[in-house]
Amino acid sequence: MTTAHTDTQSSTTAILDREVAIVPSYLSGQWVTPDNPTRIAEVADASTGEIVARVSTDGLDIGAAVAYARDVGQKNLRALTLHERALKLKEIALYLGEHKQELYEIAYKSGATNRDNGVDIDGGISTLFTYSSKGRRELPNSDVIIDGPTEVLSQDSSFQGTHIYTPLPGVAVQINAFNFPVWGMLEKFAPSFIAGVPSVVKPATPTGYITQACVRLMVESGILPEGSIQLISGSARDLLDHLDYRDHVAFTGSATTAATLRAHDNVQHAGLRFSAEADSVNAAILGEDATPDTPEFDAYVKTLFSELTSKAGQKCTAVRRAIVPAGLIDDVASALADRITAKIVVGDPRDEKTTMGPVVSVEQRDDVAAAVDKLIAAGGTVRLGGTEEFDGAFFAPTILTFDNADADAVHDTEAFGPVVSIIGYTDTADAIRLAARGQGSLVASVITHDPALANQFAMGIAAHHGRLHFLDRDDARTSTGHGSPLPHLIHGGPGRAGGGEELGGIRGVKHYMQRTAIQGTPDHLTAITGQWHRGAAVNRVTRADVTAGTGVHPFRKDLATLRIGDQFASDLRKVSLEEILEFAEKTGDTFYAHVDEEAAMANPFFPRRVAHGYLLVSWAAGLFVEPQPGPVLANYGLENLRFITPVTYDDSIRVELTAKRITPRVTDDYGEVCWDAVLYNQNDEIVASYDVLTLAEKVDTLYKK
Amino acid sequence: MTTAHTDTQSSTTAILDREVAIVPSYLSGQWVTPDNPTRIAEVADASTGEIVARVSTDGLDIGAAVAYARDVGQKNLRALTLHERALKLKEIALYLGEHKQELYEIAYKSGATNRDNGVDIDGGISTLFTYSSKGRRELPNSDVIIDGPTEVLSQDSSFQGTHIYTPLPGVAVQINAFNFPVWGMLEKFAPSFIAGVPSVVKPATPTGYITQACVRLMVESGILPEGSIQLISGSARDLLDHLDYRDHVAFTGSATTAATLRAHDNVQHAGLRFSAEADSVNAAILGEDATPDTPEFDAYVKTLFSELTSKAGQKCTAVRRAIVPAGLIDDVASALADRITAKIVVGDPRDEKTTMGPVVSVEQRDDVAAAVDKLIAAGGTVRLGGTEEFDGAFFAPTILTFDNADADAVHDTEAFGPVVSIIGYTDTADAIRLAARGQGSLVASVITHDPALANQFAMGIAAHHGRLHFLDRDDARTSTGHGSPLPHLIHGGPGRAGGGEELGGIRGVKHYMQRTAIQGTPDHLTAITGQWHRGAAVNRVTRADVTAGTGVHPFRKDLATLRIGDQFASDLRKVSLEEILEFAEKTGDTFYAHVDEEAAMANPFFPRRVAHGYLLVSWAAGLFVEPQPGPVLANYGLENLRFITPVTYDDSIRVELTAKRITPRVTDDYGEVCWDAVLYNQNDEIVASYDVLTLAEKVDTLYKK
Repeated sequence: MTTAHTDTQSSTTAILDREVAIVPSYLSGQWVTPDNPTRIAEVADASTGEIVARVSTDGLDIGAAVAYARDVGQKNLRALTLHERALKLKEIALYLGEHKQELYEIAYKSGATNRDNGVDIDGGISTLFTYSSKGRRELPNSDVIIDGPTEVLSQDSSFQGTHIYTPLPGVAVQINAFNFPVWGMLEKFAPSFIAGVPSVVKPATPTGYITQACVRLMVESGILPEGSIQLISGSARDLLDHLDYRDHVAFTGSATTAATLRAHDNVQHAGLRFSAEADSVNAAILGEDATPDTPEFDAYVKTLFSELTSKAGQKCTAVRRAIVPAGLIDDVASALADRITAKIVVGDPRDEKTTMGPVVSVEQRDDVAAAVDKLIAAGGTVRLGGTEEFDGAFFAPTILTFDNADADAVHDTEAFGPVVSIIGYTDTADAIRLAARGQGSLVASVITHDPALANQFAMGIAAHHGRLHFLDRDDARTSTGHGSPLPHLIHGGPGRAGGGEELGGIRGVKHYMQRTAIQGTPDHLTAITGQWHRGAAVNRVTRADVTAGTGVHPFRKDLATLRIGDQFASDLRKVSLEEILEFAEKTGDTFYAHVDEEAAMANPFFPRRVAHGYLLVSWAAGLFVEPQPGPVLANYGLENLRFITPVTYDDSIRVELTAKRITPRVTDDYGEVCWDAVLYNQNDEIVASYDVLTLAEKVDTLYKK
Repeated sequence: MTTAHTDTQSSTTAILDREVAIVPSYLSGQWVTPDNPTRIAEVADASTGEIVARVSTDGLDIGAAVAYARDVGQKNLRALTLHERALKLKEIALYLGEHKQELYEIAYKSGATNRDNGVDIDGGISTLFTYSSKGRRELPNSDVIIDGPTEVLSQDSSFQGTHIYTPLPGVAVQINAFNFPVWGMLEKFAPSFIAGVPSVVKPATPTGYITQACVRLMVESGILPEGSIQLISGSARDLLDHLDYRDHVAFTGSATTAATLRAHDNVQHAGLRFSAEADSVNAAILGEDATPDTPEFDAYVKTLFSELTSKAGQKCTAVRRAIVPAGLIDDVASALADRITAKIVVGDPRDEKTTMGPVVSVEQRDDVAAAVDKLIAAGGTVRLGGTEEFDGAFFAPTILTFDNADADAVHDTEAFGPVVSIIGYTDTADAIRLAARGQGSLVASVITHDPALANQFAMGIAAHHGRLHFLDRDDARTSTGHGSPLPHLIHGGPGRAGGGEELGGIRGVKHYMQRTAIQGTPDHLTAITGQWHRGAAVNRVTRADVTAGTGVHPFRKDLATLRIGDQFASDLRKVSLEEILEFAEKTGDTFYAHVDEEAAMANPFFPRRVAHGYLLVSWAAGLFVEPQPGPVLANYGLENLRFITPVTYDDSIRVELTAKRITPRVTDDYGEVCWDAVLYNQNDEIVASYDVLTLAEKVDTLYKK
C-alpha cells in the first residue's frame, strides 16, 4: 500500500466561497434555491479540499412540496398502470446509462474511484432495470396487487375474502446517507415509483450534489410524470411536520439520526410509517472447515479485502467483525495485510494509480480515527494501518486483532471507514453467539463448504440478520459479494440495523402500499380486484352456442374485446376404460392406479382404475379448445392444478373455462390471459381445478381473415 | 327496548374485599400471587357491582419470566416442527371447547351475554382451529418457512438467493384489551405459537380474571410445552425494560396507551418490535343505490343494529360513523331505532330476557357518557337513548344524527359503547372523503349492489383501512359481519387504528418471525431451507440403473427413506408427427398449432406443428413413472408449469425428476412429496419445468410384498 494523493487538500473550514453555486432543490415542479440564505453548509472535494458545493434550503416551502406530491404527484402516477410505471423505470435507466460519465466525473469529488462509482452509479441504474423487469413480469398490469389466494368464508361461497395492496395515498420521503448518492436514491425511488407513490428525496449534504446531478438528468429526460419526484438539497427542516399516516419515511443513515426521526411526534402519534436502515457491525465468519489450505480461506480473505477497501469501507454493509477460528487470527490478519499491501494505492480517484480513495470528508476521517482509537483502547492490536496521520480525508486500510473476542467495542463500535476487527471463536456455537452480539445486523457472511455447518449457522443467526451470504469454492467467483444489497433480495436488518426492510423485488414495492382485507360477494371481489372470482357473474357460451353462431368462443376474442368473466362451458364427455388403457400404453404411464384394478382398489384414494390426471387435463383442453387460428397464440403454462375427485371409467367429465385475469403487455402486441378451469363429473362434483395460462393478441391481426 | 337489570348494583368503590382472592399469574412455570401486595386493583361484576376479582403483580419477578421464555420456552418450542405446533392448537381448541361453559359462567360477570360470549369464547376457540388447520395445510412440516421463489443470481446458477422466515429468538408479549378476554388472547397466541415464539400474555385488568381462567385450562390440559405461555394478571410493571430487538410486543387497546408504549426506550432505541391495534372510528357507508326499498337498506340497518348492541358496542371494530346519503338520515335513524326498541332488553346477562348487557364497568359507562356529551355538544341530535341515568354500568343504546357531516367530534371521538353517529353525504366522492376523515380505521363496511360503486369505494378508501366489508343482497345472510375480524384475514389498520397488523392466516405467523435473505450455492440453500434447489447435489438413478437393479427408483422409497435430492433421470424419447396428430384426434385438442403446419409456422412462438403441452407432461409421466404398486399413492396436483421451448416432431425429450420437498403429515400415514420436474430436448434445452405433487406413505406398508 502506498499513498498517491497530493498534498493540495485544504481545510474544510475554508472561507465561504461565493463563487460556488448553491445546489438547487426541485420542489413543486421547479428548480429552486434560497433567495437570501443564512445557514449554508459547504462541501469540499474529499481529495483536494476545494469547495465544490454550497447547500441551503433556507426559506424553501417544504410544506407546499408535500401538498404538491399529494395532489399533482398522486394524480399523475395513478393515471398509469403498474406496468406503465415499471416501463418508465427502464427508460430512465437507459437515459441515465447514456449520461453516466457525467455522474462519474462529479462523483470523483467525493473520493469515489471508478470501482466505487460502478457500485453506486451503475448499481443504481441496474436497480432500475431489475425493478422495471420484475414489475412487468411479476405484477398485474393494473393498479391493484392481489395478495394471496381467495378465502371462501361461507359454505355457499357467496361470502369471500381476499387481500389487496393499493398505493399509499401520500408521499414517500426518502432520506439517504452520503455513501451512495445515486444507488441510495434509486433503490428507494424505484419501488415507490412502481407502487405509484410520489417521492420527496432528501440526500445527505456531503454528497447531495451528486444526487442533484442525477435527479436533474431524470427530470430533463422528460420521462417521469410531473410531481413523481422532488428533491430537497439540504436540510429537510420541517418536512416531517407535514406528514401523517398516509405517508412513508424511508431513512438510511446513523442509528442516532434514526432514533431522532423515530421520536418525531408524527411517527409517535400520527401513524407516519417510518422505516430505518442503519449502519450495523456486520460479521464475516470463517467456518471451521475452511482451513488455510482450502479455497474457502482465500475466498474469505478476498471478501475481507473487498469490504475493507471498496468505498474506503464506507458501506453500511461492510464487514466490521471478522470472526475466525481462534487459531487462525494470525493467518487471516497476515493474508489480508499482504493482499492490501500488494494491491492498494490510496489517493485521489482521478489519479489512475489510485485503487482506494479518501473517505468523504475530514470530519468523517476524524470519526473513523476516533472509532479506531476506541477499538485500540478496548484491546485491539493494529496489524496494518491505524490512525497515523494522513493528509485531509485519507485514511489507511486498518486491521485490528483482539485476544478477547468479547471486548464490547468490537461488537458495538462501528468504524465507518477502511477498518476491520478480527476476533477468534472456540467452536461453532461460540461463533454464533459472537455474531449475535452485533444485536441485529444487515448482513453476515459465512464461509463454509460444509452443508451441515451452513444449516447450523443459518438456524443460529438468521433471526439476527436481514441477509446471510454463504460462500465456498463453488460460488466464490460468481457471488455478487458480501457488501452488495441486490434489488432481488431484501436489504435491512433487525435491531441495530434499524429494523427496516427495503428492496426484495416486489416486496419493496409493497412497502409503499397498504394491505387491506376485502370481504364481499364474488361480484364485489371481481369488481374491486379486476380478477374474476369463482362464483361471480359470467358471460357464458356453450359449444352449441358456438356451433349455432349465437355465441362467440372466448378464444376468438382478442384482448380488446375479451372481458373477465367470459366463459366457455363444454359438453359432457364419457370416459371409457379402453381410453385409459390406451393412454397408458401410448404415453408409457402405466402407473398401477390406471392399469391394475386390484392394486387401484387397494389404494386409499381410488375406487378402481382411474383416468390419469394428465389425461383429464388433455381431454379438458380438447373440450374447451377453439381449433381455428385466432387471437389465442399459445398455452404457455398452468398453475395450481389440483385433482379433487378421481374419475373412473363410465364417469363423464365437462369443463368450464372462464377468463380470470387479463394482462396486456406494455411492450408487445400480445398479453397474458389466465383462465380459470374447472372440471366437473356427471354429478357436478369438482374433478380438477387449475389456471390455464395463455398468450393472446391485443388486437386480432395475425390470423384475421 | 326495556331495562331488565335489577338495582342490586353497588358502587365499584366498594370496601376492599379480603375474601376475594388475587388473580394468580403464571410465571416461570408456576402459578404465583404477590406475598404482600400494596397496590391492588379491584374488579366488580358489571351488573351487580359485587367485587369479583382482586388484581396485583407487586413483587412478581417479571424479568425472570422473560428470561424463562427465552430459555425454556424457546427450547421447547423449537423442539417441535411447525405442523406439530399447529396440531397442538387443535388439541387445545378441543379441550377448551369441552370446558367452555366454565368460561361462559365466569364471563357473565363482565356483562357479556351468551351472544357476546359466542363472539369472544367460541370465536377464540375457532381461531385456534383455523390456525391449526392453516398451519398444517399451508406451511412446511419443518422449522423454516421459505418466502417466494428462488432468485438465480449468476449466469451459471452457482449463486442463488432466496428468503426464509425463522422464529424470533425472543418473547412474544401480548397485551390485550378488556373487551375480548379470550379471543383477544388466543388470536395473538395462535400465530405466535405456530411461529415457535413463547408468549407472555398480559390481559386488561377489568376482565383479566376471565383470561386467567382460560390460561388455567390451557395449562391444565398438559398439551402446551412448558414455557410456551406465561400470564401476567395485572400491571406489566417493568416488562418492557427487559425486551429488545429479539422480542415482539403486540398491543390492543387505546391509542393513548399505544403511544405510551411506543415511546418506550426499547422501542425507540433497542429495536423492540411493537405492533398496535387501537380503537378506531369505523364507518359503515350506505351506497347511493341502496335506497329504502332495497334489500341492501335492510342489511345496512341490521349491520348498524348488530354493531351497536353486540358487546354493548365495546368492540374496536364497531361502527361509530354511519355515512348515508344526506336524504336518508331520518330513514336510517328511524329504522334503526325501531329495530332496537323491538329487540333490545338491557340487563344482567344472567337474566334470560336480557339481549344486551352493561358495559364492563361504571368507569367505562362514564367514559361513554362523556363521549356522547361531546358528540351532542358538536351538534349531535339524540334520536334514541342518550346519557340519561342508568344504574351502574348500564348504558342505553344511543343514536345521534348530525346536520353537519364534518363536525370534528364525529370523526375523532370514539364512544366505546352502544353509540352510533349518523351523518349524510352528497355524492360518492363526498362519502369517500368523509370515510377518510377517520384518519385510518380498522374496518369500513360499504353496502352496495353496484359493482362499479364497490370498485370506486375500494379504490378511494382501501389505503385508509385494514379491512373493507362489502354487503349486498347476495351476502347479507352469509356475511360474518362488519365487526368480526376473521383469522383468515388481516386485522388492524393504518393511522388512528394503530398501524399494526394481526391475523391474516399465515401472514400473522410471519409477524413473529424474521425474514432473512439467503445467498449461496444451491447446496447451501438446500441445506438451509430443507428444500432441494435446482443445481444442488443429487442422488441420481437412471432407468438403466433401475432395470439393472443397481439403483432404486425414488418412487419405491417411502418417506422414511426418501431424501431430497433423490433423482430419477429418464432416457430420451423421440417425438413423431403421427403421435402429435393422434393425440389431437383422441383428445379433441385440435388447436391449430398442433395440426395445421401453415398456421403453426405463422405463429410467432412455434417453428412448425408442435406437440401439445399436455402431451409433453403426459409423456414425461410415462418416462419417469415406476408402475408397480409402492409407497407413492397418487399424483394430486401440479404447480408452476411453464413451457419454455416448443417441441416439434423429430425432437426428443427426456425428464429429470428430483425430490424437492417432503412433508410428512402429523395426523396421517402418508405425506406430500413435491418433485422438481424438468423436461429437456435432445439439445439439453429446457422444454418445460414444473412441480409434481404426490402423496406417499411414511412407511412402505400398503403394497409391501
